[in-house]
Amino acid sequence: MGDITELHGRRNKILGAGSPLFYSKPLHLVRGEGVSLFDAEGRRYTDMYNNVASVGHCHPHVVEAISRQVATLNVHSRYLHEGIVEYAERLMGRHHDGIECAILTCSGTEANEVALLMARQATNGRGIICTNAAYHGNSAAVRALTRLSTEVISKTAEVRAVSFPDTYRFVGDDPCSYYLEELDQTIQSFRRDNVPFAGMLVCSIFANEGLPNVPKEYLSKAAEIVHAAGGLLICDEVQSGLCRTGKWWGYQDMGVLPDIVTMGKPIGAGVPLAGVAASGELVEKFRSETRYFNTFAASPLQAAAGNAVLDVIENEGIQSSVLAVGEKLLCDLQEIQPQFEQMGDVRGVGLFIGIEWVLDQTTKEPDVEGAMKMVEALKEKGFLISHAGAHRNMLKIRPPLVFQHTDSAAFLEAFNETLRELYG
Amino acid sequence: MGDITELHGRRNKILGAGSPLFYSKPLHLVRGEGVSLFDAEGRRYTDMYNNVASVGHCHPHVVEAISRQVATLNVHSRYLHEGIVEYAERLMGRHHDGIECAILTCSGTEANEVALLMARQATNGRGIICTNAAYHGNSAAVRALTRLSTEVISKTAEVRAVSFPDTYRFVGDDPCSYYLEELDQTIQSFRRDNVPFAGMLVCSIFANEGLPNVPKEYLSKAAEIVHAAGGLLICDEVQSGLCRTGKWWGYQDMGVLPDIVTMGKPIGAGVPLAGVAASGELVEKFRSETRYFNTFAASPLQAAAGNAVLDVIENEGIQSSVLAVGEKLLCDLQEIQPQFEQMGDVRGVGLFIGIEWVLDQTTKEPDVEGAMKMVEALKEKGFLISHAGAHRNMLKIRPPLVFQHTDSAAFLEAFNETLRELYG
Repeated sequence: MGDITELHGRRNKILGAGSPLFYSKPLHLVRGEGVSLFDAEGRRYTDMYNNVASVGHCHPHVVEAISRQVATLNVHSRYLHEGIVEYAERLMGRHHDGIECAILTCSGTEANEVALLMARQATNGRGIICTNAAYHGNSAAVRALTRLSTEVISKTAEVRAVSFPDTYRFVGDDPCSYYLEELDQTIQSFRRDNVPFAGMLVCSIFANEGLPNVPKEYLSKAAEIVHAAGGLLICDEVQSGLCRTGKWWGYQDMGVLPDIVTMGKPIGAGVPLAGVAASGELVEKFRSETRYFNTFAASPLQAAAGNAVLDVIENEGIQSSVLAVGEKLLCDLQEIQPQFEQMGDVRGVGLFIGIEWVLDQTTKEPDVEGAMKMVEALKEKGFLISHAGAHRNMLKIRPPLVFQHTDSAAFLEAFNETLRELYG
Repeated sequence: MGDITELHGRRNKILGAGSPLFYSKPLHLVRGEGVSLFDAEGRRYTDMYNNVASVGHCHPHVVEAISRQVATLNVHSRYLHEGIVEYAERLMGRHHDGIECAILTCSGTEANEVALLMARQATNGRGIICTNAAYHGNSAAVRALTRLSTEVISKTAEVRAVSFPDTYRFVGDDPCSYYLEELDQTIQSFRRDNVPFAGMLVCSIFANEGLPNVPKEYLSKAAEIVHAAGGLLICDEVQSGLCRTGKWWGYQDMGVLPDIVTMGKPIGAGVPLAGVAASGELVEKFRSETRYFNTFAASPLQAAAGNAVLDVIENEGIQSSVLAVGEKLLCDLQEIQPQFEQMGDVRGVGLFIGIEWVLDQTTKEPDVEGAMKMVEALKEKGFLISHAGAHRNMLKIRPPLVFQHTDSAAFLEAFNETLRELYG
């Protein structure tokens, strides 16, 4: 443990003590393989948090593709390169017909920067709507969409928030109409204040908001409202995309066809890779008006990593496995729920499951402390999860997509044991 | 050539025809090694443009380090990891004493986003000064610094430009005082308009501006003026850093100690890696106010690539080679200059050389078309350069740092030959 203390101290000094770390006693990781992560003392953990390594840590096919490419060629995108064209073609082939053309970037932040500008250029608008518990990245323009209050405090505000569809806490009969009405009101507030409307940017499954059970028609009807007001719908697929939900994209779960999609996290297996896609018309307009260029993006390295990830998903039955393992895990957790007052709501899709930790199932009062205790206790038992959501009280269970039934069974045992120990 | 046409067509369709490409007949590259790039037909080119592969394309030590790391572990930065701490320590060890602490990002754009916010937080200011021919990245906040007019068109403008120190075209006796006076006036314009001043962001060697011969004391005196007004000096080392100039950082050539530095391009050898560094105080303030986190940054992969690049620079005598080869090439080009009216000015530092292409050495009228012809003709002879600068008429010669005297001699022969063919 002396090593950890020393390393932690050096890290505080050179990266800043404010550089975020998980867990009260941070993990010193040295190796990864499949759903396993190993610390410096050789202890194995089951990773149930990381979505970047979605095809598993250090997948041999991905490792081989990256290694081969960096030994062959890695340059910027102002030369022709087969790999990057092939990658963009394969990626576009997985989207709905209106998504034809891609702009690659290095991060989800950069992708959302492009998406916002693209929507504003295409509509000659400025007004963007996000949700009140959103996170889409860390640049100035994108950070403006982070956990914004629904209260509009300035008539010139170009970003305004609507409440996310929080069906767990909604009181009333018709959450869908309620939340759509709020969207409509917010668009009208832009009109009233002479801020021309550009569009709505949301995570397709509202992951940071807490992965709510979204009313079936909410997003498709929201798209209609946005379109009727002259805006575009941008779906942020950074968390929901690439088979996380068991479908290729979260927007397919929601039954909606976005105008612009942004992608990131899992698509490069840890090589910084993200992107924006839209119709050819939208992309060409953006390109001609900005001459967008990104030094590290659309590189042979990004292409090699991206193509290798697609290979694994296509060749290893990932999609059906996600559906089967995810559904079983969700059902098993829902079965436990009635026994524990703390498990306010168990919900999710594919291999993305959230459990709202509450003090009381009737009042639904969020229990952040309890959620954090569960996270720490499960880590001690060798299972890595986190907590998130609008109230930060949701256990966030999001393993690599190669997570299997056996991993799930082991987790359930540890989960039950932890519950008994903490609440037994 | 049928393959190139087909690939180009597919690229236009899937990435957009507006996705930038070099050369009237684009290059289809398939392999790189050292300073050599090879096209699909096996033709070899000497790379005299790429600064990302600064230690040479596909350097075996870098390839091995990246391959080993992706096979071992690659996760986000909220776990302890030896590699990233070591990398930040080594990088900080190369900076002046006031630069103590680093924040890693995926791109120069992201690094400059952080730097702008850091300066604004630290000073409680908003006003940023850049030059009138700058480029620091492609996000909304950073793009606002791109080729901005020196004319202030709005009293609320938070970004204002000063003329870059263009000593080649300056008419008068004392360019240094002239340009400093303009800086002072611009700071006063912020004061007059009640826009609190935050600082100045410049490329240490004004690379995009055209790599001017900066008056010896310009930047150190600019720093004094900026500091006296309560602002911070941010040096963008994305192009000038990591021994490009023969010194570790361009600011060392300029004799100035910046408060914040940003780094990018060469530091990861093509793995998207960039960063910001400043005093511990500035970084901690930024971290505590933003809880900045970047999914792909400060990863074991970035660390492996970054450390390997530092290894090569330290172990292979890169720095002294850059100085020797760069100086000889500059002298050789300056020797040719008097024979050709088109070579308006030959200048540079280390392995970064610019030649202003002009119609007439007296009027100094920029000859963009001529510069483009030189670029195309040299490509046909197997040498890859580009054109840039405030007037886009500067031949931009910026080979990987492993460029040798023999490469230089071969280039000079081709350069002379091209001049004779085009202007002979």
